[in-house]
Amino acid sequence: MTRKIGIIDLGSNTSRLIIMAYTPGVAFQLIDQLRERVRLSEGMGAENILRPEPMARTIRLLNVFRMLCEANGIDTIVATATSAVRDARNQAEFLDRVQKEAGLSLRVLSGDEEASYGYLGAVNSLPIQNGLVIDIGGGSLELGRVQDRQLAQTASLPLGAVRLTETFIRNDPPKRVDLRMLDRYIDAMLGSIDWLKSGSGGTLIGLGGTARTLAKIDQARRHYPLDRLHGYTVSLTSIENILHDLEQLPLSRREKVPGLSSDRADVIIGGTLALTRLMHQAGYHEMTICGQGLREGLFYEQFLKDSGTALVPDVRAFGLANLAYLYNIHWPHARHVQQLAVSMFDQLKALHHFGPFERSVLSGAALLHDIGVSIDFYDHDQHSYYLILNAELPGFSHREIALMALLAKYHRHGTPSVDAFRGLLTQADENRVRKLSALLRLAEYLERGRTQVIQSITCRARGKVVNLIGRTRGDASMEMWAADQNADLFKQTFHRDLVIRLEAQADRDLSSTPIEPAGSVDAEPLWSRVRELIEQK
Amino acid sequence: MTRKIGIIDLGSNTSRLIIMAYTPGVAFQLIDQLRERVRLSEGMGAENILRPEPMARTIRLLNVFRMLCEANGIDTIVATATSAVRDARNQAEFLDRVQKEAGLSLRVLSGDEEASYGYLGAVNSLPIQNGLVIDIGGGSLELGRVQDRQLAQTASLPLGAVRLTETFIRNDPPKRVDLRMLDRYIDAMLGSIDWLKSGSGGTLIGLGGTARTLAKIDQARRHYPLDRLHGYTVSLTSIENILHDLEQLPLSRREKVPGLSSDRADVIIGGTLALTRLMHQAGYHEMTICGQGLREGLFYEQFLKDSGTALVPDVRAFGLANLAYLYNIHWPHARHVQQLAVSMFDQLKALHHFGPFERSVLSGAALLHDIGVSIDFYDHDQHSYYLILNAELPGFSHREIALMALLAKYHRHGTPSVDAFRGLLTQADENRVRKLSALLRLAEYLERGRTQVIQSITCRARGKVVNLIGRTRGDASMEMWAADQNADLFKQTFHRDLVIRLEAQADRDLSSTPIEPAGSVDAEPLWSRVRELIEQK
Repeated sequence: MTRKIGIIDLGSNTSRLIIMAYTPGVAFQLIDQLRERVRLSEGMGAENILRPEPMARTIRLLNVFRMLCEANGIDTIVATATSAVRDARNQAEFLDRVQKEAGLSLRVLSGDEEASYGYLGAVNSLPIQNGLVIDIGGGSLELGRVQDRQLAQTASLPLGAVRLTETFIRNDPPKRVDLRMLDRYIDAMLGSIDWLKSGSGGTLIGLGGTARTLAKIDQARRHYPLDRLHGYTVSLTSIENILHDLEQLPLSRREKVPGLSSDRADVIIGGTLALTRLMHQAGYHEMTICGQGLREGLFYEQFLKDSGTALVPDVRAFGLANLAYLYNIHWPHARHVQQLAVSMFDQLKALHHFGPFERSVLSGAALLHDIGVSIDFYDHDQHSYYLILNAELPGFSHREIALMALLAKYHRHGTPSVDAFRGLLTQADENRVRKLSALLRLAEYLERGRTQVIQSITCRARGKVVNLIGRTRGDASMEMWAADQNADLFKQTFHRDLVIRLEAQADRDLSSTPIEPAGSVDAEPLWSRVRELIEQK
Repeated sequence: MTRKIGIIDLGSNTSRLIIMAYTPGVAFQLIDQLRERVRLSEGMGAENILRPEPMARTIRLLNVFRMLCEANGIDTIVATATSAVRDARNQAEFLDRVQKEAGLSLRVLSGDEEASYGYLGAVNSLPIQNGLVIDIGGGSLELGRVQDRQLAQTASLPLGAVRLTETFIRNDPPKRVDLRMLDRYIDAMLGSIDWLKSGSGGTLIGLGGTARTLAKIDQARRHYPLDRLHGYTVSLTSIENILHDLEQLPLSRREKVPGLSSDRADVIIGGTLALTRLMHQAGYHEMTICGQGLREGLFYEQFLKDSGTALVPDVRAFGLANLAYLYNIHWPHARHVQQLAVSMFDQLKALHHFGPFERSVLSGAALLHDIGVSIDFYDHDQHSYYLILNAELPGFSHREIALMALLAKYHRHGTPSVDAFRGLLTQADENRVRKLSALLRLAEYLERGRTQVIQSITCRARGKVVNLIGRTRGDASMEMWAADQNADLFKQTFHRDLVIRLEAQADRDLSSTPIEPAGSVDAEPLWSRVRELIEQK
């Protein structure tokens, strides 16, 4: 990674710093972060004045942020402030003090800018074509309508979780009358956005602490098998059930609800009410969580600066490339296994009847199957599984990530099972994993020596036998031997015998068409650049 | 890594290839391996003649080995053969064919050489001062007596698992009369080694498939919480119980015993009988498994060639350094956290009453606490835990590895628990983990910015308060703030309040004495070399 940047996001409730190392346009990695709930907006009230004590503790924290940036040797600091500072009547005084006492120039984002950076974080990390991106912060609620991946409309409303709680909820647990008043206030505010009802459609993407917290509570209730929020979908029904339960509890008991952190327990009800009203008004039955947001949006702006756009061309291809780069995959081998596996998949459709979903899972898993070697050669299949499960992999659904992790786990041996993912994967998925693992395993052993000696494969299924003819450009007896030794899963899963034959091939190029893991755009330029960077390491 | 080597070990039962990437004397990593049970000795019988079919399939495999070496771009191949070839009357013919048909010069090891390389593998990966290293192969049993880490005596006996099984066991399940005959034969053979009874002492180290298989079966029976054989200790009583059970079962049911692979099930009884008789004769009540052996011994000879010795100076220090190198740890930070943590440990003895065992665990964990950052910054404590649990870490016991992994897991937050290690760690260990985690966490936050701004710590425990005075060489308010925020575990675990104070320090060097994770030799030269190599990467 060639550059480092620090991004500060000074919110009304929580303030955060992220430090990213990155190679522009190609790869990035979070290398440090700090998060503290300083509650800058505390006591602002209707007068909208930042109070001395919250200002003082915020400036102390900003000094800590600046020091951590310096200690990390960053090139650039982007420091931004949102709702609390934006609305403060004493904004100028505060900015001046921050400059003098913490050495930072704060950029105050407008509500529309805030919505727009949140949209950038979301659209670069989830496969969104159309929909609505919302960010319930401490002070405000930002909305961005997405059309064909572009930001079509934005709005910012004073419906932040802290603000609503401080203004309306005066009892613990809240009284019904307070909640009804709050409901009406939120409905009125949302009603002011005329485009909200008319044709929102698409996907609802939720950013920020309220959305993440609700997803965590939902996962805890469902004993969800993955420890992953980004890309998780929670239904309106579940959110309303959670809200109903939380409303009955005093703060001291809310703090003990699994998934709800104690520094969220006081403001969760206000934020959740705003969310449910919004879902009703805009007609969404579920919300997908985005773990990225404003800070990442600000980052993408820098990261993609030279490319003339603020949008990653293909979120999934980028995620795979980023991972390939971080773990220094053996690029020619990984790509060749990917090509052999997908080519067999395409030729054997009559045997598996799978479609684009499974093809993409197989293709992604093939590219990443060996990343675990970076941990240890022994059990590297298990390590690849762990790394895939714990990687960001933006743009892939939880189900796709679990399936890819399993394919990597079983790419050398073992009988595939989905038992670890009850509640996410089904018995039908076990069948998927078996068939796709059988293909991946065969591709892996047909490329045992990592020399691409078997350039391509022709498959012919006839009755109870599948014939594989490998076109070779050298001695492939090791690959032939290895594939034969490891054909059991294929034979058992497809109920076919397997006969492998090699054919020496004249010197012409046999590489088949490139395989796009995502399929939406041409990812070849990105692949080439990543390969080049890995080789330079 | 600057070099690559392929090591071939052509045994009587199984043949193996390992490919290592390495930087001489500093670090190495297994990058590929192949293992196949070709059973070269099949049908040799009393005439000691290698038969055509086993020879042919062995030569085919050796060709595969050579091709894999070439595909990996290795610099050197070391190809060795043991008992079957050593004893064969048609050895010359076989060597000649291997040279012509597989392009490999096989080096035939004498029994003493075999024992000696096995000893090298063991003594470089386990902390052995005195004891006996045994390797039950397919054809022969090698013994090496270790005195002060040196090889004092060797012997080689024709007591390999395949040989004993083929010669004595003619029924399935075996008949008592066969087993009694076998017992007597083994006793007679062992009786020929006069030094075996007199003062073996120390540790019994078991290499090879028979020893590993028995450990696997024992772990399966005990529901052992770690998936790790190297360094595992199994008692003679357990081995005899396992043997007793296996003797009753026909092959078809032995194959289904958890931990026993189907290609071991036929020869396990012969090998286990040899082992139990040896343990009785030499007076050992338990055996520690070594996952390294002949191949690694051959590797160490090359790896340490320039250092004028075939022994790694300090097995534990080497293991830590190797890991630090592989995961590019931030050396100044890791070493400084190590120094602060161990310094507090030493000063607060009155509070914890721990000794050298805990000090070494704390020290090792402090060095490795951040290796998980290489996977992802979020949850990097969890990733460090995974990496430590799955790393080789030669020289550390399973208990130490589990404790170090837990310290890394809890170095930032969470309430330490040892629940995942039932059967290995006790409630007393939970107390250990809590206290040591409290110290590590404090050291980590006192070094929050990774700049070593707090150079040293003085601790004073008075009544219910512990005072920490940090000597600083700059603005350490971030560290002060971070340590304060994360002092809860310390306060709760030691039942003391904590008061942290900073004192600016004049320019003199305050770094305390270096901390040896192992303590046996001066590891500083190794540390410096690794640091240098990481910085060059």
